[in-house]
Amino acid sequence: MFEQLGLIGCGLMGGSFALALKQAGLVKRVVGYSKSPSTTERARELGVIDVEAPSALLAAAGADIVLLAVPVAATEVTLKAIRHLVTPQTLVMDVGSTKQDVVQAARSALGNSVGSFVPAHPITGREVAGVEHAQADLYRGCQVILTPTERTLTAQLRRAEQLWSALGCQVSTMAPEHHDTAFAAVSHLPHLLAFALLNSIIGQERSNTLLQLAGPGFRDFTRIAAGDPKIWRDILRANRTEVLAQSRLFEQALQQLQAAMQEDDTQHLEDLLTLASSTRAHWRMGQSHSHED
Amino acid sequence: MFEQLGLIGCGLMGGSFALALKQAGLVKRVVGYSKSPSTTERARELGVIDVEAPSALLAAAGADIVLLAVPVAATEVTLKAIRHLVTPQTLVMDVGSTKQDVVQAARSALGNSVGSFVPAHPITGREVAGVEHAQADLYRGCQVILTPTERTLTAQLRRAEQLWSALGCQVSTMAPEHHDTAFAAVSHLPHLLAFALLNSIIGQERSNTLLQLAGPGFRDFTRIAAGDPKIWRDILRANRTEVLAQSRLFEQALQQLQAAMQEDDTQHLEDLLTLASSTRAHWRMGQSHSHED
Repeated sequence: MFEQLGLIGCGLMGGSFALALKQAGLVKRVVGYSKSPSTTERARELGVIDVEAPSALLAAAGADIVLLAVPVAATEVTLKAIRHLVTPQTLVMDVGSTKQDVVQAARSALGNSVGSFVPAHPITGREVAGVEHAQADLYRGCQVILTPTERTLTAQLRRAEQLWSALGCQVSTMAPEHHDTAFAAVSHLPHLLAFALLNSIIGQERSNTLLQLAGPGFRDFTRIAAGDPKIWRDILRANRTEVLAQSRLFEQALQQLQAAMQEDDTQHLEDLLTLASSTRAHWRMGQSHSHED
Repeated sequence: MFEQLGLIGCGLMGGSFALALKQAGLVKRVVGYSKSPSTTERARELGVIDVEAPSALLAAAGADIVLLAVPVAATEVTLKAIRHLVTPQTLVMDVGSTKQDVVQAARSALGNSVGSFVPAHPITGREVAGVEHAQADLYRGCQVILTPTERTLTAQLRRAEQLWSALGCQVSTMAPEHHDTAFAAVSHLPHLLAFALLNSIIGQERSNTLLQLAGPGFRDFTRIAAGDPKIWRDILRANRTEVLAQSRLFEQALQQLQAAMQEDDTQHLEDLLTLASSTRAHWRMGQSHSHED
């Protein structure tokens, strides 16, 4: 149970976190700050936060738990703004989709207080942004990856694990670099590919006709291409090296398929499709897998 | 209203068509044939067909409407098997995802009876196959593209339009080559990309960990990668030229994004993402679009 949540960033992710904590009875009071005063005001009107703060520093003042729900690129400057208030008793977390850059930002911004910071990545989200879409159950049932470093305080790591578990999440820990490789492969690259497909279609003369004919396969495949461009610009930049490396592996896999088509190698094409199809057919979100079956 | 449907191929697509016609009261009797006798038997047990036929020819005998719901590669041999029963009064349709090859197969198999054949592509489907998954409402609300040629009989084209409309579909007509370009872009290529992404992940050392971490974005993006490998092998082969052309356009769009990341050209990256994101956010299935808004 926490006394006061300092919420920095009252958007979809931050707002939903505040609502979830309130609904679970895990916090008494939420003090919120957003860069745009109208967002902060709206968050209070909607009951997402209880008190509006005019700065990140004032949102963190008196808080025993602070959540950063800002673009990953803003992590360092935000942590710098609150560094003097971070004690070994404060639990500070983020919800960013990349972790090596966040860990680096925390090291450089927090100095000796970095042990209070537990980098967190809840694997959830929606294609809509803004506090209006915040919902108490956004995190329920999702996976949360914590990427502590050797300096993270065990006590704060435990509290973070307990908190996300109490919100109905499956919590696991992982090294920041493993996290970033994995998410480059299963999240950031798929986003890049979906963006690229849209741009490839838009660039064609009959693009409107093409889009008009697109069906449910296209709808699901490109859902993530509607993601916020600024958020995805930041994620792709923050995890650039890993995403580009995964992109190269993907291009090799695509070229294998293209070659099988070009050479009309029916059996090879079928084998390649079977490997993908059987793996995907057996895959279930959040479960262990083996593609040998 | 039809007297007798000759259903050749009693799988998901064919079985659902039979159920839909029955539910709409548009057919009195369904005679079915599948390559595998156990499938035909199962279709009768499930009430999808009324009578089992031991051959495609006998399924078509006495039918005033024939539906081919077989892999596209089997179109020509199947049409050849029934050609002597096709009269100007018979409506013959397929449900294949490619149309230039189907039109070519119909020309060469049906000769002077080709006017009775109305090539059809209902834009629907599921990632599961088999008559067990057939459902009367599979076609409800979907788009159906008819690709008549200059030899198609107007009377049969009208009957096809009326039939699909009666099943709750939005029917439109299009030249076979325009159809194939469009579906290469919005369906076949996305499938190819989803297959390639799976294979790219499977090829990595920690693939099980990666798959375990994948979330809802990956789930939706790769749903189509669970498609039947044999069906997709045939579709990719049948529409090879168009799919490879679209694949090259896609690679150019991907390389633009990669270059913006590599050069860390923030504004250019954001512009490219914004173009894709705003187009996708305004897109609605089956509606006209303009990406200028």
